[in-house]
Amino acid sequence: MTQPVTEAAVRGHLDAQARPPGSLGRIEDLAVRLALISQSLTPRAERLSLLVFAGDHGLTQDRVSAYPAEITQAMVVTLLAGRASANAFARAVGAEVRVVDAGVDAELAPHPALIDAKVARGTRNAAREPAMSRAEVELALARGAELAVAAIDRGADILALGEMGIGNSASAALLMHRLAPAPIQDCVGVGAGHDAAGLAHKLAILTRASERSDATDPLEVLRQFGGLEIAMMAGAIHGAADRRTPVIVDGFICTAAALAAMRLRPEVGEVCLFAHRSAEAGHDRMLKAMAAEPLLDLGLRLGEGTGALLAAPLVRAAAALLADVASLDDVLAGRL
Amino acid sequence: MTQPVTEAAVRGHLDAQARPPGSLGRIEDLAVRLALISQSLTPRAERLSLLVFAGDHGLTQDRVSAYPAEITQAMVVTLLAGRASANAFARAVGAEVRVVDAGVDAELAPHPALIDAKVARGTRNAAREPAMSRAEVELALARGAELAVAAIDRGADILALGEMGIGNSASAALLMHRLAPAPIQDCVGVGAGHDAAGLAHKLAILTRASERSDATDPLEVLRQFGGLEIAMMAGAIHGAADRRTPVIVDGFICTAAALAAMRLRPEVGEVCLFAHRSAEAGHDRMLKAMAAEPLLDLGLRLGEGTGALLAAPLVRAAAALLADVASLDDVLAGRL
Repeated sequence: MTQPVTEAAVRGHLDAQARPPGSLGRIEDLAVRLALISQSLTPRAERLSLLVFAGDHGLTQDRVSAYPAEITQAMVVTLLAGRASANAFARAVGAEVRVVDAGVDAELAPHPALIDAKVARGTRNAAREPAMSRAEVELALARGAELAVAAIDRGADILALGEMGIGNSASAALLMHRLAPAPIQDCVGVGAGHDAAGLAHKLAILTRASERSDATDPLEVLRQFGGLEIAMMAGAIHGAADRRTPVIVDGFICTAAALAAMRLRPEVGEVCLFAHRSAEAGHDRMLKAMAAEPLLDLGLRLGEGTGALLAAPLVRAAAALLADVASLDDVLAGRL
Repeated sequence: MTQPVTEAAVRGHLDAQARPPGSLGRIEDLAVRLALISQSLTPRAERLSLLVFAGDHGLTQDRVSAYPAEITQAMVVTLLAGRASANAFARAVGAEVRVVDAGVDAELAPHPALIDAKVARGTRNAAREPAMSRAEVELALARGAELAVAAIDRGADILALGEMGIGNSASAALLMHRLAPAPIQDCVGVGAGHDAAGLAHKLAILTRASERSDATDPLEVLRQFGGLEIAMMAGAIHGAADRRTPVIVDGFICTAAALAAMRLRPEVGEVCLFAHRSAEAGHDRMLKAMAAEPLLDLGLRLGEGTGALLAAPLVRAAAALLADVASLDDVLAGRL
């Protein structure tokens, strides 16, 4: 590539196609993003790999989740068996699924779809002490980057990120609070499910956690409040950016990982495609703090990468638009 | 099928799956719709057929469009050559494309993807006289129903509807005005593109058209103001409803066809899945008048079925969710 691909060049290419200029709205914007990321007018977007990062959270000791911590392991097993919601969506849209053990608090049996990248058996309880050591958070970031690069080297044109980890909406809320930044009460939502009392308790625990450290440096914030799967997703975004490969970011927790990734390395925002606005209370505000406009708004609040998978066909359509459409000049001249 | 499939039964099935109840938001609602339409907990949604209905409009004689009427034929040829935007999206999502000549004002050469259902070479100018005869509108409705049934008999699990017809946003605005109903100025938008003067002219012509007839009977409104491709899409919705097959409705013009179809036969609303909220001015209001909640909001304003194709993967994901996900009981008991 001698000449860089500029936004003006991509818009010019799209505007010359046989339709009213701009009439495909955000799909055209997405096509521009893909062309700029790949520095190509024919970006590839066929092969999609979903990486579901799993980890446990010491915060669950203080009952920040309505679900027991053991569900993390049970859902990892379900994902590996191909029986979780994300697997159903992956089959529907055509995606490979890999589950990354970033820090599940259990010994997991080997499986062809399981990548063992375990840094520790869960984080420590961030309400009482730093969630990770400096070595742990750095290892999680590095392994995430390696895994993204490995997936791209295996042939993935696009990565989708997802997560599984009971308690991780609490960790993500703390990251948002400190990195967006935003008042803690604006960052806390029901996660996998809470009644009013459960939500109030979660807020109280997270308020206590936030009072324990005044960190604002992104690496230190990740160390104090993050999760192993969240840090590893942030690393994966760094790895994808190094390879100029688009990353579809799922919901609240995954967006918190993208927020950390961007606070560590602002330029990686270029490769992040935000899939959806979730039903989790703080997500819309976090997206706005990142100037991110998500593609979908479907009231999702599951995780596992389900929203990222649903957005993937839009990314593929945007890539197809760049490649395959006649120019208006060719249409009017009968050159088809 | 001895017992009818009820919404309660489908919700119960979904709620028992291994995720927090309701956490897939509108995808769960879509799964319920699919199950109720098909009366099955395992609806098929793999094979997607896009029918693009094309027709010309006498209203173009009064310059309601910024584009010349000849573009209809040119874009039909482009669609048949596989080089239009809808073809690119169809390849990206995996859909068959068929172009239906409902009323193009030209003789079209035979093509394997072209269905000749021509009722007339365009409509008459609805600003001055009824767009169609009673026989024409009835023939268009009947042929649309036949074509939908034929596509389903060829194997389509889902139909997507799209259109191509210079001037058809003007016709659709008149249908909305009379059938939503809504003041004509709330129904008129820029269509394929207009500056302020063009939009004012379009409104003036459509105001004159609306003053020519006070019809409110849906068949008479279609006859007075409709297009051949719009009437045929309405018929296709009737045909799909007869076969209990979901129809993905594209943007403003297609929604006007669905409005007509529903005013003629209210029960057919059950099979209509509204793909997106378009950038055309009246679309949001028309959708609200039909109590329709579209799946996507991407600023599209092209037609050709492009928005319907982009929504199709969401429909497939909803079907996959019903079929393929473990129950929480099975997960907790280790039965995977």
